[in-house]
Amino acid sequence: MISIFEHPWLGRFFGDIEISALWSAEAQLNHYRAFEKALALALEAFGKVEPGQGHAAARAIESITIDIGDLAKASVIDGLPIPNFVNQLRTAAGDSGNAVHTGATSQDVLDTALVLTLRDASKIISERLEILDARLDELRYIHGSKRLMGRTRMQTALPITVETRIESWHSPVRNHRRSFQELRHRVERLQFGGPVGNRDELGEYAQEIVDYIAKQLSLTAAPTWHSDRTGLAEYANWLSAATGSLGKLGKDVMLMAQQEINEIDLEVGGRSSAMPHKSNPVMAELLVTLAGFNATQLSGIHQALVHEQERSGASWMLEWMILPPMVMATARALSTSITLLSQIKSIGTGV
Amino acid sequence: MISIFEHPWLGRFFGDIEISALWSAEAQLNHYRAFEKALALALEAFGKVEPGQGHAAARAIESITIDIGDLAKASVIDGLPIPNFVNQLRTAAGDSGNAVHTGATSQDVLDTALVLTLRDASKIISERLEILDARLDELRYIHGSKRLMGRTRMQTALPITVETRIESWHSPVRNHRRSFQELRHRVERLQFGGPVGNRDELGEYAQEIVDYIAKQLSLTAAPTWHSDRTGLAEYANWLSAATGSLGKLGKDVMLMAQQEINEIDLEVGGRSSAMPHKSNPVMAELLVTLAGFNATQLSGIHQALVHEQERSGASWMLEWMILPPMVMATARALSTSITLLSQIKSIGTGV
Amino acid sequence: MISIFEHPWLGRFFGDIEISALWSAEAQLNHYRAFEKALALALEAFGKVEPGQGHAAARAIESITIDIGDLAKASVIDGLPIPNFVNQLRTAAGDSGNAVHTGATSQDVLDTALVLTLRDASKIISERLEILDARLDELRYIHGSKRLMGRTRMQTALPITVETRIESWHSPVRNHRRSFQELRHRVERLQFGGPVGNRDELGEYAQEIVDYIAKQLSLTAAPTWHSDRTGLAEYANWLSAATGSLGKLGKDVMLMAQQEINEIDLEVGGRSSAMPHKSNPVMAELLVTLAGFNATQLSGIHQALVHEQERSGASWMLEWMILPPMVMATARALSTSITLLSQIKSIGTGV
Amino acid sequence: MISIFEHPWLGRFFGDIEISALWSAEAQLNHYRAFEKALALALEAFGKVEPGQGHAAARAIESITIDIGDLAKASVIDGLPIPNFVNQLRTAAGDSGNAVHTGATSQDVLDTALVLTLRDASKIISERLEILDARLDELRYIHGSKRLMGRTRMQTALPITVETRIESWHSPVRNHRRSFQELRHRVERLQFGGPVGNRDELGEYAQEIVDYIAKQLSLTAAPTWHSDRTGLAEYANWLSAATGSLGKLGKDVMLMAQQEINEIDLEVGGRSSAMPHKSNPVMAELLVTLAGFNATQLSGIHQALVHEQERSGASWMLEWMILPPMVMATARALSTSITLLSQIKSIGTGV
Repeated sequence: MISIFEHPWLGRFFGDIEISALWSAEAQLNHYRAFEKALALALEAFGKVEPGQGHAAARAIESITIDIGDLAKASVIDGLPIPNFVNQLRTAAGDSGNAVHTGATSQDVLDTALVLTLRDASKIISERLEILDARLDELRYIHGSKRLMGRTRMQTALPITVETRIESWHSPVRNHRRSFQELRHRVERLQFGGPVGNRDELGEYAQEIVDYIAKQLSLTAAPTWHSDRTGLAEYANWLSAATGSLGKLGKDVMLMAQQEINEIDLEVGGRSSAMPHKSNPVMAELLVTLAGFNATQLSGIHQALVHEQERSGASWMLEWMILPPMVMATARALSTSITLLSQIKSIGTGV
Repeated sequence: MISIFEHPWLGRFFGDIEISALWSAEAQLNHYRAFEKALALALEAFGKVEPGQGHAAARAIESITIDIGDLAKASVIDGLPIPNFVNQLRTAAGDSGNAVHTGATSQDVLDTALVLTLRDASKIISERLEILDARLDELRYIHGSKRLMGRTRMQTALPITVETRIESWHSPVRNHRRSFQELRHRVERLQFGGPVGNRDELGEYAQEIVDYIAKQLSLTAAPTWHSDRTGLAEYANWLSAATGSLGKLGKDVMLMAQQEINEIDLEVGGRSSAMPHKSNPVMAELLVTLAGFNATQLSGIHQALVHEQERSGASWMLEWMILPPMVMATARALSTSITLLSQIKSIGTGV
Repeated sequence: MISIFEHPWLGRFFGDIEISALWSAEAQLNHYRAFEKALALALEAFGKVEPGQGHAAARAIESITIDIGDLAKASVIDGLPIPNFVNQLRTAAGDSGNAVHTGATSQDVLDTALVLTLRDASKIISERLEILDARLDELRYIHGSKRLMGRTRMQTALPITVETRIESWHSPVRNHRRSFQELRHRVERLQFGGPVGNRDELGEYAQEIVDYIAKQLSLTAAPTWHSDRTGLAEYANWLSAATGSLGKLGKDVMLMAQQEINEIDLEVGGRSSAMPHKSNPVMAELLVTLAGFNATQLSGIHQALVHEQERSGASWMLEWMILPPMVMATARALSTSITLLSQIKSIGTGV
Repeated sequence: MISIFEHPWLGRFFGDIEISALWSAEAQLNHYRAFEKALALALEAFGKVEPGQGHAAARAIESITIDIGDLAKASVIDGLPIPNFVNQLRTAAGDSGNAVHTGATSQDVLDTALVLTLRDASKIISERLEILDARLDELRYIHGSKRLMGRTRMQTALPITVETRIESWHSPVRNHRRSFQELRHRVERLQFGGPVGNRDELGEYAQEIVDYIAKQLSLTAAPTWHSDRTGLAEYANWLSAATGSLGKLGKDVMLMAQQEINEIDLEVGGRSSAMPHKSNPVMAELLVTLAGFNATQLSGIHQALVHEQERSGASWMLEWMILPPMVMATARALSTSITLLSQIKSIGTGV
């Protein structure tokens, strides 16, 4: 596997099954379906198709088995799966085919599916933030009053308590939890603009149709954001900032675990193929690696902000390449931190 | 000049005198002084120095002429100016020297000075956002009802109004204005942690002293953020996102100004040294360049999140290198956008 | 799939089966085996194990079926597969177990396996460069003498021939071909340093053993490069530069394919789910996307140059995350370019 | 100053007067002049202007005092200085004005001036590489036989000699020296393409004129590289790779200088404003910072590879912003390394 996250053996270390599952074929197709089904029902509800057609189309959308081979073949030509996906749905819907995808465009489906995926990912991330927050509380409770040498610019400075050091890990986590709640709101928005972003084909009830779909999908009914990707950039910034804060935790543990420093005692470590006495702080190192990874990727998300006109294929596709790995790296940094904290047997010195 | 922003001739195109002035020696020294003066007064107010010593020190801090040559010479050894700056202040304060810098550390001064600088920059940025917002309103008012070909993936799609295109520029600007107001709050925070971040040397009135200083400087009295740079990362993300949105405006104008497309008419253009007939859309190009610049830099700010222990010199210094140019690029992108919009004679076709 | 390269349907557009196969479990295990087998034989050849033990171990290494589940489980703890892999080999080798991995370390196996993988990838890349070079020759032969408007800074400049434009695509390809041949040499180097990079455990015949292994694997017998990753950085630079040059080709085609410009006629285009008349230049867009992707990633490879001491786990792992996708993106940009050129029906105007 | 390299006090720590001087107004104007003078003489030599006109123009070019204020004012409109610069030269040349800039374009002047600047920078870089190489030899000679604990993944591994560690710093430096010599060759190329890159205006003796100019400037007479920036990308890659290797040296020194580890003794350190006992390894930290800076910037240089058509203003200008600071950071990393090595009093333990 090209991707370390899905590598046959390293994937277990770098990746995360829960997050991988969110980008499975099945999960993605379900999001595509959910969008198209909600649209079909909305078109009927606001008289854009004959009575019954929306429901008939919705049933077809729900029950069809998508031919993934066909989807893949068409994607090579089209650069995206939606034209073929819509064809498959329309064929299945038969006479109600005009209730499928009318007024929408590929980007509406793919962006909404992304947002539904991110919502699922955000739930996992939120849960892990909560657990991490609790673990840091516990760590402070158990070890906080012990002593540690405070260190600045890699030199011994003045003695501190373990609590001070733990607080330098904990404070950003608390802030990230708070900011993530506000941020999710701004990301979980329906995408609906139609071919050129003005929703013209939906006619006079365009806003109502959009509201209807958003309600069905439990998303915010935002104005079209086809070419305004700053919501995603803000999400990516959060992902990278959170991973960066956990990188600091990792780096500190690596430094504390140096034999001569010996300020932390970890239960488990990575073995060496050559030196049986070694116990490598691989979970701590992974945190630094993931921080470096996300800081690198973030630049690409921001380069992709520069869309042309009503839609930039080139910029949009760059997001597809970069954003899912960033989500994965962040979720993995959170689970890695939780594991790492649970491996701490002692930290600091004294009572 | 190494920096294009301060280049003898290109600096006029790429840079911005108002922003440059915020990082002048005088402006920076004034921020250093402001911090130290507020601290001196606070130390007196809460009995950490003898009555009168704080005020005496404050007067010395205000009136001293800093020897910049000395500051520079010491900075080569120390990697930062504050140890020498404090020595100069203490010498000037004479018997009240113990009211200078007591309980503080270099990072408290430099980070607070940065925050005061960013506050000044944020005012300029806010003003420009407001002007840009108004200019986009005007542009829509004048040209909004004209026709334009909607274009997706660089191909003609369906006709739109000029308003739809302008809205794709305007909507992110409105959002950036709103988010910037919230963000400034989270950045304009006093830095005060003392040598190892626990404010121990301030004693039992540590919080009161910090509150006092914050009030003097009209900053928020936040917990120490020596090693938690996510506030700055969020600020940098905003800078890059705003510049990215303006890059989209620039790219659109470049595409509209192609002769065969001819959807926009600009009053002024860049001349060519070889082709007298040319009129290059250099302001639009500059917007794309600045977007690319900030998207590149943002990665470095996030790499710098990984501090070690109570303070990372290496990560901290990377911020010094990268953040000021990002502020400059953003402010310049805003003024460039305003200029570019004012150069539009017509846009779209029809009435 | 998190990775677009291995996505169930988009993987066919973004990815490349030939390159994916190089990172398959089987291919990777074969490279691990090749290293260990060559080492076992070398140890025997230079008297580090008893006569027969090296050959016995080599046979065991060749015939063993690796338990991948076990490898994966151990990798979660160890952060890498080699300690467990070596255990499996040693168990299989029985009495000749001391001829397995003696004197080596995990990094020797993984880096050498990487280099063997890159060699295979380089062959594919070289073949595609050759094809692309030929296709550009053909294109010039067929269309070179036609006329085209020369354009600078997105404005019409002076008329040129199609040959001039094609040469702007072709010249970098020729240079990349030449530089790639020189570069491959510098990358296809055996990694052998042992636990701390000094080959001490190999004893007096260390150089001979290293030469023997290198010869078996048809690699250069270089000094240890455990913590000097500049060879890989140079390779990554080439990947990104080549992809960037092809991004220019893509961007030019996108601009030429604008309806009003109409300087190129492509046979096939991406369909739209909403607008039947559209034919999107998705292959050209993909080239721009892949260029942006690799330019983003390159920064991470360079951040990873800063190893600590004899081996940095954190920096090394970052390479594992970033380098394979860069290879994939480059190989795909090459095949995309070849496809795109074959889709050109006409370019420029006139005879 | 926005730029830390030219900051009134920190510029002494981060920057470099020798490198700054290469980008001074005077140095840059001299390069512009050198190009135009060589062109004027070439035009006469190959009969493109009347006998005497080329020499007359050359004299005017040499003796004119450029009005920098005028240059700056025009640059705001034109986005570059050359149209105004050429006007000033033509006015000065009077009747011989047609021997000024004929057949050339702004990019020919600016790119050639860049290349002449890089040549001067490369000389400085080469000298420093040579000094650094020698210093590392000395260091090995004095301290190489002492003992040191080998460390991998931040854990003690096996004892090594100091020589092994020094070799991990030295080997990349030697390689960088070698590769830099080859690289300079590929960068020090005349840029001459004329308005649209085909040199059409030079007529039948185009190649001879180009060869003449190249010879005058002691540059290679390469084909036009207006839109092919891979030579600069390769140069930037070298800069970042060299800085990365020195970052490893810096990081190692930071780790060795930890009090409990105590493997290195440095003569001078940075003082703290709060803790008199501290001696911060600021030169070592600076190396890590500069490595992070260049790794960040490199991405922007590669994003700028994607030119459109015969010249991309947006991509070209991004180079102007990013490349000079990269050169500065590299030169400073070299001088910092030399200084840091000279501060080493002892390293390792034992005899």
